[in-house]
Amino acid sequence: MTDAFHPPLRTLMGPGPSDVPPQVLEALGRPTIGHLDPQFVALMDDIKRLLQFVFQTQNELTLPISAPGSAGMEAAFVNLIEPGDTVIVCQNGVFGGRMKENVERCGATAVMVQDAWGEAVSIDKVRAAFAEHNNVKALAFVHAETSTGARSDAQTLAEIARENNALVIMDTVTGLAGIPVEVDAWGIDCAYSGTQKCLSCTPGIAPITFSKKAQDVIANRTTKVQSWFLDMQLIMGYWGGNTKRAYHHTAPVNAMYALHESLRLVEAEGLANSFARHALNHRALVAGLEAMGLSMAVSEDIRLPQLNAVNIPEGVDDAAVRSALLSKFDLEIGAGLGALAGKTWRIGLMGFSSKGVNVRKCLLALETVLNEMGADITSGAAIPAAEAIYANQ
Amino acid sequence: MTDAFHPPLRTLMGPGPSDVPPQVLEALGRPTIGHLDPQFVALMDDIKRLLQFVFQTQNELTLPISAPGSAGMEAAFVNLIEPGDTVIVCQNGVFGGRMKENVERCGATAVMVQDAWGEAVSIDKVRAAFAEHNNVKALAFVHAETSTGARSDAQTLAEIARENNALVIMDTVTGLAGIPVEVDAWGIDCAYSGTQKCLSCTPGIAPITFSKKAQDVIANRTTKVQSWFLDMQLIMGYWGGNTKRAYHHTAPVNAMYALHESLRLVEAEGLANSFARHALNHRALVAGLEAMGLSMAVSEDIRLPQLNAVNIPEGVDDAAVRSALLSKFDLEIGAGLGALAGKTWRIGLMGFSSKGVNVRKCLLALETVLNEMGADITSGAAIPAAEAIYANQ
Repeated sequence: MTDAFHPPLRTLMGPGPSDVPPQVLEALGRPTIGHLDPQFVALMDDIKRLLQFVFQTQNELTLPISAPGSAGMEAAFVNLIEPGDTVIVCQNGVFGGRMKENVERCGATAVMVQDAWGEAVSIDKVRAAFAEHNNVKALAFVHAETSTGARSDAQTLAEIARENNALVIMDTVTGLAGIPVEVDAWGIDCAYSGTQKCLSCTPGIAPITFSKKAQDVIANRTTKVQSWFLDMQLIMGYWGGNTKRAYHHTAPVNAMYALHESLRLVEAEGLANSFARHALNHRALVAGLEAMGLSMAVSEDIRLPQLNAVNIPEGVDDAAVRSALLSKFDLEIGAGLGALAGKTWRIGLMGFSSKGVNVRKCLLALETVLNEMGADITSGAAIPAAEAIYANQ
Repeated sequence: MTDAFHPPLRTLMGPGPSDVPPQVLEALGRPTIGHLDPQFVALMDDIKRLLQFVFQTQNELTLPISAPGSAGMEAAFVNLIEPGDTVIVCQNGVFGGRMKENVERCGATAVMVQDAWGEAVSIDKVRAAFAEHNNVKALAFVHAETSTGARSDAQTLAEIARENNALVIMDTVTGLAGIPVEVDAWGIDCAYSGTQKCLSCTPGIAPITFSKKAQDVIANRTTKVQSWFLDMQLIMGYWGGNTKRAYHHTAPVNAMYALHESLRLVEAEGLANSFARHALNHRALVAGLEAMGLSMAVSEDIRLPQLNAVNIPEGVDDAAVRSALLSKFDLEIGAGLGALAGKTWRIGLMGFSSKGVNVRKCLLALETVLNEMGADITSGAAIPAAEAIYANQ
């Protein structure tokens, strides 16, 4: 007989999942009802409205995809892109590369705009790419690169795309609810996210929104969407409008309870308050890390408050530090990904994880472990530096 | 401010989701940990082993897809089928039609073998289809048709496919843990299921298994899998082997807690006991329904014990009955789907829902509602007929 699984009580300060509030876990475990139950249908309407709120959009086609953020990305591309299309894809980290994979698997051509990992997408390079290529169907970029902690200028990128009559596809998996995301004001045609970052819900669901223009593009496709599961025209029959809901797939009912509760918490706090909280805790963490003698990997002007990439001091064993933080402090921080593996740690302050308690715990734990490993850091300075930020907020 | 959502306490006797045991809901709500946490990796190993047990397979490539059963179906086809392939698809209900959609969206040709809804797949027609078509890559069929409640002869169908050197793709979304599923003994190359049927877990995850032969077919593809999210060669980097787990997508951590717990419950009961329980409650329900004067839609020899299609008596308002059962008894039964809409009800006795308490509740509630609507039924006979079955078990 297999033993029951009782997870340890971690503090989640990696690149997601973030700490999930007890209210959300409690909602998750409420009794399951049918996916066509009238009460579930009412819940779906609530979720749609709350997603419109966090995305800051009036888009009718706004809903949670029943699968993780990667499937949200795939839903964006397989619905909007057809074989033979050209898409300008900006890559400044892992997820731009994944976009390229998606574009190519749609039978389309990805024109790559490459920037160094940890930098923002270059506006000039994107302008140049549009100047060089005709009939670009869409511009795709990552708003908040989870692999590096860098923020790109979504508003300007969207402007350039619109000037060139291209659709705007934006990955804001790590952005949503942590920094401003203005789908309508910026003119984004498709934005997708994940539940396990700044929404602090459990992982597994991908909120997505499509503009009216994007919806028209989908309606006028000449080929079928290659994915039956992610075909928005079919999904719309279940999620869309006020008419009778048509069965498409069985919705992950309990995950919807949790998403609803996590969105309610964001609504209760207010987006502006949430952004301010993320910014404050970020400043306190950075002040502490720098007082310790560590340096940040991303320039101050484009740092994501919710994902802090820290340079690993020379001679320090990356994996040993993370392992000690986990075993001695139940604290998870993230490893570097791709080109940054072994070079940075990624410290998440996302959603419910973005709080002073976590900032202090992380600073003390990291200082303790680095000292034990004989790293060359300044002791005793981190907490006062962080407290100074909190005192002056 | 949006109100919290507190679901009603339904009894789920539709085509899924089924009632979820409190232990599984409790496991679902346990604290979230990271998807690369060593303790989560250990949980993944447990889940894989337990899935091998319920599928009755030694297949190394056995894992839960992070999305609903429909995505499990898509994972089977997009990995095994390439453009230009020919697939024989058996249709005797809704899900064979969905298989056709999947095959065609892979750029392949679906040779359809059609049988009436509510009947089993015809062995003779499948033999004839193989005789007529050369170079058939795969035979695809639904083991337990959720839309009709009919069981097909998976073992014989698999034999025919093997004789013709074709892969065997089996949908056993509703079959798994309710009736025998013998992946290795039957020679099934790919079988997929869902968590919300006889496993009585929450909806949203699709267990899947691929034979060594299927794995080789995937490894030797000449084209990339059209779905990045469902590409098994990438997913294997996270779920496969004992080596370091590579990040692919963020696993739905809490859903894995629930799946693990639901599999533990199946393991504790034992598969043979689970099958016997499903069979017994099915016989009691049928005895009660027939004593009431209702008739079953599917022949006795191919009836699924976990999904009971009942003919709606003439003149009875389908939707009004289901609505009354829901509002007066918190009891959900399923509507007919596709060709059977308005003609049958589908009464599920799946997993945790398969129990005497539910059989009795359903019989009494249905009798009460049908009487209130003036239907021509026999009163007072259903419960004694069901009790006779339980007394003689």
